[in-house]
Amino acid sequence: KKITVMAGDGIGLEVTGITQNILGIIGERFGHEFEFTPALIGHSAIEATGEPCPQETIDTCKASDAVLLGAVGMPMYDNNPNLKVRPEQGLLKIRKELGLFSNIRPIKLFDELLYTSSIKPEILQGSDIIFFRELTGGIYFGTPRERNEDGTEAIDTLRYSKMEVERIARQAFESAMTRRKKLCSVDKANVLESSRLWRETVQELSSEYPEVEVTHMFIDNAAMQLIRDPKQFDVIVTGNMFGDILTDEASQIAGSMGMLPSASVGSEIGLYEPIHGSAPDIAGKGIANPIASVLSGALMLDISFGMKDESDAIISAVDQFLKEGYRTTDIATDETPEDKRMNTEATG
Amino acid sequence: KKITVMAGDGIGLEVTGITQNILGIIGERFGHEFEFTPALIGHSAIEATGEPCPQETIDTCKASDAVLLGAVGMPMYDNNPNLKVRPEQGLLKIRKELGLFSNIRPIKLFDELLYTSSIKPEILQGSDIIFFRELTGGIYFGTPRERNEDGTEAIDTLRYSKMEVERIARQAFESAMTRRKKLCSVDKANVLESSRLWRETVQELSSEYPEVEVTHMFIDNAAMQLIRDPKQFDVIVTGNMFGDILTDEASQIAGSMGMLPSASVGSEIGLYEPIHGSAPDIAGKGIANPIASVLSGALMLDISFGMKDESDAIISAVDQFLKEGYRTTDIATDETPEDKRMNTEATG
Ligand SMILES: CC(C)[C@H](C(=O)O)[C@@H](O)C(=O)O
Ligand SMILES: CC(C)[C@H](C(=O)O)[C@@H](O)C(=O)O
Repeated sequence: KKITVMAGDGIGLEVTGITQNILGIIGERFGHEFEFTPALIGHSAIEATGEPCPQETIDTCKASDAVLLGAVGMPMYDNNPNLKVRPEQGLLKIRKELGLFSNIRPIKLFDELLYTSSIKPEILQGSDIIFFRELTGGIYFGTPRERNEDGTEAIDTLRYSKMEVERIARQAFESAMTRRKKLCSVDKANVLESSRLWRETVQELSSEYPEVEVTHMFIDNAAMQLIRDPKQFDVIVTGNMFGDILTDEASQIAGSMGMLPSASVGSEIGLYEPIHGSAPDIAGKGIANPIASVLSGALMLDISFGMKDESDAIISAVDQFLKEGYRTTDIATDETPEDKRMNTEATG
Repeated sequence: KKITVMAGDGIGLEVTGITQNILGIIGERFGHEFEFTPALIGHSAIEATGEPCPQETIDTCKASDAVLLGAVGMPMYDNNPNLKVRPEQGLLKIRKELGLFSNIRPIKLFDELLYTSSIKPEILQGSDIIFFRELTGGIYFGTPRERNEDGTEAIDTLRYSKMEVERIARQAFESAMTRRKKLCSVDKANVLESSRLWRETVQELSSEYPEVEVTHMFIDNAAMQLIRDPKQFDVIVTGNMFGDILTDEASQIAGSMGMLPSASVGSEIGLYEPIHGSAPDIAGKGIANPIASVLSGALMLDISFGMKDESDAIISAVDQFLKEGYRTTDIATDETPEDKRMNTEATG
């Protein structure tokens, strides 16, 4: 299997490096061959080619069976409006080019991390949520998105078509059918026209899935309910921006941002990446938590390659690793003994 | 002082009723006269006049010194795209008509409720955040906001001008100067053009407030940080939609949505309302928590009327009430004895 590896920026290189090692071990054990081809994206691509997602990267991705992504983003761009070329444009471009309209983000708490979160263990215990975030539409892509001539006004456009809503909602319904048969669709239909279209479309589709119990929640309420009582949720489907916000928030359910993988699908080639960012402040120190990336690798085996046993082997290994008490700093507690505090060199 | 009371929908009537009683008591004790004039808004206004915010309501508000609002919204509108007139339009209209561009939402935890939240007490203890949410711009008001002809596509427009960002940011900076001198501005500048304008404008203004330490945070990260470590925040300034989401989420810091008041200001007449909604499911049962509305009344006394002592008297009374162990169901715990479980008739 051909895997394109886009390490990207910041901690991207460290975490994808570890995932490649682990995929290599899995390949040996189960008799598969994984071939890794590097490709540039983000700040590192801008440095090398002037573009955040050069054509060569797109070609490499399209010629492979799946893509592993680290993270993109560098603070130098964030506060400098004069830099018109930015790392994140690369990420948005590759998502669009590969037709990855569905970003799947499972939120699962490893038993061992029950006490790591800022949320009370009794609130968390038993939570198991899967998000379907629409990834190639909404306010991330709508046009016009521009300044007026004298630069004193800016607009972005939130656009959704029925087709875009339907295809992501369908995936969410299908997923709900294999789970607890509950689907919560999140929108802001009391204010936004696009959210009313969203809600209508989900509602219409629900007649095809009579067994699934569908609820609609406003985004403000959802942001609150997610931490008040996460166990009420099974499958959540929402738009690009709301999904971005809710899944980052939901990382607290899993103990840390460093734990959450994601799969972006929609065409033949899936892309797998942690939900965390490039964390340049800790990059190169060997303290980044690689688990989100490693679990993204597990999602790749399962979703893109149909290798369920291989995927489960990775998840068990992570579980075992945590059971043995090993912790990166983001998930360490006062009780974690010195010799179990890991840096990523050791975890690799 | 003339106060317009817009009870609105659902629990709005119950909670504003209690606040009026309390303002009456304060008036007697401190020798002020508060004159209450009712006005229609939301579903109840639609029922009576066909409009969610009739001209009479606007006139009444404009002729008063301050406005007390309950809540608006009814589920019957939310899933019915054929209803073109909706309660929330009334709320958006009155905010716009009164020029209330700044929605101030203080998040403060009463000591007594430290154990009520889904978040761990040690994470919460000492949190004290004030939000400045832009209220009359952004995606709530930008045009075009419409369907295409055959209804298969919908758009909303997120628009901000430098002036709009500057005036709300200025309020936030001024507030930070009276507090711990930390301002966090929340945006999504790595994706949105309007957020880049937002960030630039805040950055420019910061030169006028050299003592204030300014940070910029992406909305996804902010949604996570708010519950991971709320103590890192002092003043937060953000746009209309992001503010809507973050403040609802932040209600978990205060133990319950039922605890949080807000002040909307920008012209001579301030509007005061809980951040919670109309909660039609519990309306009329006498179990709604009136504290958010009562504290909104306290904000009114302080901000609109400059009655600091009177405002503090209300806050102390709420504190006392909680210390004595009285609880509405939303903030009750297993330990709350039966005779302290309140319904709002009793709290009134
Ligand atoms: C880096 C950024 C553009 C991206 C997004 O907002 O989609 C990230 O936050 C994510 O969630 O993958
Ligand atoms: C009812 C709704 C339109 C309103 C908003 O989104 O502004 C509410 O959620 C609020 O926060 O005041």
